[in-house]
Amino acid sequence: MKIALAQLNYHIGNFEANTKKIIHAINQAKEASADLIIFAELAIGGYPAKDLLRSKVFKQQCNAAIHQIAAHCQDIACIIGAPVTNSDPEGKALYNTAIFIEQGAVRNIVKKGLLPDYDVFDEYRYFEPNKRFDCITLNGVKIALTICEDLWDDDEGGNSYVGDPMSELRKENPDLLINIAASPFSYTHFEERVKVLSRQVVKSNRPLIYVNQVGAHMDIIFDGRSLALNNDGTKVAELKRFEEDLQYVTYHQKNITSTTAPTKDPITEIALIHDALILGLRDYFQKSGFKRAVLGLSGGLDSALVAALACEALGADNVLSILMPSVYSSDHSIKDAMDLVTNTGCKHHIVPIKDIASAYENTLAPLFEGLKHDTTEENIQARARAVILMAVSNKFGNILLNTSNKSEAAVGYGTLYGDMAGSISVIGDVYKSKAYELARYINREREIIPVNTIEKAPSAELRPDQKDSDSLPEYDLLDNILYELIENEKSGSEVVAMGFEKALVERVSKLLNNAEFKRFQAPPILRVSPKAFGTGRQIPLVAKYPY
Amino acid sequence: MKIALAQLNYHIGNFEANTKKIIHAINQAKEASADLIIFAELAIGGYPAKDLLRSKVFKQQCNAAIHQIAAHCQDIACIIGAPVTNSDPEGKALYNTAIFIEQGAVRNIVKKGLLPDYDVFDEYRYFEPNKRFDCITLNGVKIALTICEDLWDDDEGGNSYVGDPMSELRKENPDLLINIAASPFSYTHFEERVKVLSRQVVKSNRPLIYVNQVGAHMDIIFDGRSLALNNDGTKVAELKRFEEDLQYVTYHQKNITSTTAPTKDPITEIALIHDALILGLRDYFQKSGFKRAVLGLSGGLDSALVAALACEALGADNVLSILMPSVYSSDHSIKDAMDLVTNTGCKHHIVPIKDIASAYENTLAPLFEGLKHDTTEENIQARARAVILMAVSNKFGNILLNTSNKSEAAVGYGTLYGDMAGSISVIGDVYKSKAYELARYINREREIIPVNTIEKAPSAELRPDQKDSDSLPEYDLLDNILYELIENEKSGSEVVAMGFEKALVERVSKLLNNAEFKRFQAPPILRVSPKAFGTGRQIPLVAKYPY
Repeated sequence: MKIALAQLNYHIGNFEANTKKIIHAINQAKEASADLIIFAELAIGGYPAKDLLRSKVFKQQCNAAIHQIAAHCQDIACIIGAPVTNSDPEGKALYNTAIFIEQGAVRNIVKKGLLPDYDVFDEYRYFEPNKRFDCITLNGVKIALTICEDLWDDDEGGNSYVGDPMSELRKENPDLLINIAASPFSYTHFEERVKVLSRQVVKSNRPLIYVNQVGAHMDIIFDGRSLALNNDGTKVAELKRFEEDLQYVTYHQKNITSTTAPTKDPITEIALIHDALILGLRDYFQKSGFKRAVLGLSGGLDSALVAALACEALGADNVLSILMPSVYSSDHSIKDAMDLVTNTGCKHHIVPIKDIASAYENTLAPLFEGLKHDTTEENIQARARAVILMAVSNKFGNILLNTSNKSEAAVGYGTLYGDMAGSISVIGDVYKSKAYELARYINREREIIPVNTIEKAPSAELRPDQKDSDSLPEYDLLDNILYELIENEKSGSEVVAMGFEKALVERVSKLLNNAEFKRFQAPPILRVSPKAFGTGRQIPLVAKYPY
Repeated sequence: MKIALAQLNYHIGNFEANTKKIIHAINQAKEASADLIIFAELAIGGYPAKDLLRSKVFKQQCNAAIHQIAAHCQDIACIIGAPVTNSDPEGKALYNTAIFIEQGAVRNIVKKGLLPDYDVFDEYRYFEPNKRFDCITLNGVKIALTICEDLWDDDEGGNSYVGDPMSELRKENPDLLINIAASPFSYTHFEERVKVLSRQVVKSNRPLIYVNQVGAHMDIIFDGRSLALNNDGTKVAELKRFEEDLQYVTYHQKNITSTTAPTKDPITEIALIHDALILGLRDYFQKSGFKRAVLGLSGGLDSALVAALACEALGADNVLSILMPSVYSSDHSIKDAMDLVTNTGCKHHIVPIKDIASAYENTLAPLFEGLKHDTTEENIQARARAVILMAVSNKFGNILLNTSNKSEAAVGYGTLYGDMAGSISVIGDVYKSKAYELARYINREREIIPVNTIEKAPSAELRPDQKDSDSLPEYDLLDNILYELIENEKSGSEVVAMGFEKALVERVSKLLNNAEFKRFQAPPILRVSPKAFGTGRQIPLVAKYPY
């Protein structure tokens, strides 16, 4: 039995484009004489469609797509993910299902049991959990078909009232395991995924085919990397990272073979982050129908990184950098920024903000008379820059890229409606210490990020001789503490118990909490870590925070 | 059996303040010789605590509070809502429970079965659903004790895998029904709530005591209005609206009596909205530790409304209005704004934006050379005002109030980082047509909102002789279409089928979709309708929207 693994990039709600793409893959697989083609979880409709799943029209379009696709499957079987209406009015409106199509008709609808509802997931909002699990059969092969989390028996999404779908399915002694997924990327996730899948293979002593989504939707990035594992745990196939791919494996007597050798090149964490950000940025623009970007280029590391990533994702011609020096900008800032412009080939303009800052100062002078300069005046500069960038965006249609990093976003070292502005935050899930790594990675072949940008002490340049280290601990230390508080969800006292200085942990924890109200209004952030700011981390604003 | 209904205003995570308040109510009830005191759902810890429920320290503080409260219940029984750890590692970490305390010790922990996970609710993110329902007994009285949604058997939160808790409990033939709730206000919700509770009373032929939270947390407003209903459906007690309250009823032989007559004054929808906004605004400030507000006062309806509401909620001394006329401001604008200042007694400053707008124009002239004026220049003015307001906020510590209404927020008739700025949106869930009603309600005794502000044609005054009606349909018509699309979640074609003009519905629907990216970065909105923008309406940004 020849099986096609179709790892495609879907667009939420774009039924026309998705269905066309799906049918194209089906036709390819038919030409290759495949017996079965497998698509990802919620391929029809896209994921996460969120409250669009409540729309009657959306559901009608899902059903129409299923029938259209089925009509193309006369000579090939097909497994594809789709939301399907729950006929029981007592339960949630939909099931998250794997549709099994054979001879042009829907044969089985396999429903998902374990619905993740943590971090970025909220599947209980839409889907009824399934509690009954049965194998399907194709050409005499008994298949344990599951959807994503149903294979993750010991995950936090596990629910005692559903039980463990795979234990149920193993009782039927299946020949082959198939799992369709929409499993978002984080730089720690792939190893975990392989571990979980391998454990299932070993437990069942059966081969497994795993088909994931690829592509990005706002914050969430799917890395693809669909897999075929044999029952001894060997990797028979691994589909491309961050790209669409269609590969074939052959199933014969509880064994899988492939003519393509699985990807073997080792990849570093920072390379994964880089590739994820490129895909995230590219898909954000492409799927939103945007082409050109604009950003403020300061000469510092963060904006240089975002410019370089944008040039790679969108083409340097489509990236407009605006240099906005103030009286506090140091001599090297313009030079460093211009070096970046030269190295990347992006477009640029220089728009000094001196006169605008003066106009604010004069206008506000009667109101602020007798009061000292403070962060107010620094924020005015940051906001004046945002107004310029948004004016360029409004006038020319370029989309503003936000350049905040995760360390800044965490401690609130940024100005709301100022440098926190933008349609999408490119490196908002990348700590400053990792941003340096990323810059060095981008420079792996030639200097793109100017060396001086990497080597100079970071500064917001909003007052004379300002350094980030005036207000913040050194980034290596800060990021370590933040990682424990955010990614590891530790309490302050637990972090202190690890050996970090008490007063420092208290200060960082307080800064983190106090910045919740700023982050509430921040742009969506491309998610690359296991715990990004945004939908995956929901902290109430009007609260006393535990320490 | 004398029973105290304790309707209190909790602060999320503020265990010290909440516990003190709870123990104070217990002591009052003991002095009044009550046998039982009942508090709301999740009184301990507050609601919605969101991801704070994942914090170990938060959970420890919950447990400590339970024990501290129990120690004060030697001579009185107590029912109080709290999150309690689930000992089964297979399930979610917590249960949403009603703790039953008798003689100073926890006797029963009743767990919630039906966990709402729609609109603003996401209880599956944190809680394991209960599937077994048993009555508790106090002084020989058998009590069917449930938590909020468990009484709402036919609601969309119903889940076939939990079943209907009340059907189970009725089998035990209870003497009395008690429901503790955290049921947010919307202007349609109270009638629905009474209907559901009455149905349960009739089905069981038993009296019901219902204790709700009161108070606001960011967007969500609890209206209180706890109830005691007799088994013939008569209302024996109704606690205060939007205020803390402690009342007593007496249970004797399947019958409830009260010495206080239930509130009988009829209240209009607009009065409810007004009172909800006042509580929402007051609690946002009080619970965040803020005192003073700032806002931009244009002479138009929306900012006048927000100023008037803020003066009532925070005191006129704590409200600073900034008048920021431009060259496009009409003569009456300053006069109307000044009339509002006089009528309310709030503070004010006049800060003209002419020089700042010129500075932007001059600075951007080389970049925009040869290009026509368009919305870019209008947005610059709106953003220049936001920079001034934020500067005042930064310098003096006043919190910026957003003044957008729901109609504007819906169609994107507002400038991101401009008039969309603010820490909290006061009337962002109030359509423009309702805003007029609200203004007339505020003027019910004397003119607060200037009559000219109410009667003149609405205008953003960002270009000469601009009127809202140049860009938008008349608000009455627009709001009707929006209500069908948003509150009633109808598709465009369904709205057309109702008789609205096709081209207009298409245009409004498109505007609504295109503004999703702006609303993503909008401040939290005080929720008064059954479907507000914000957490209760989650639309993906990078998507093709169904029509």
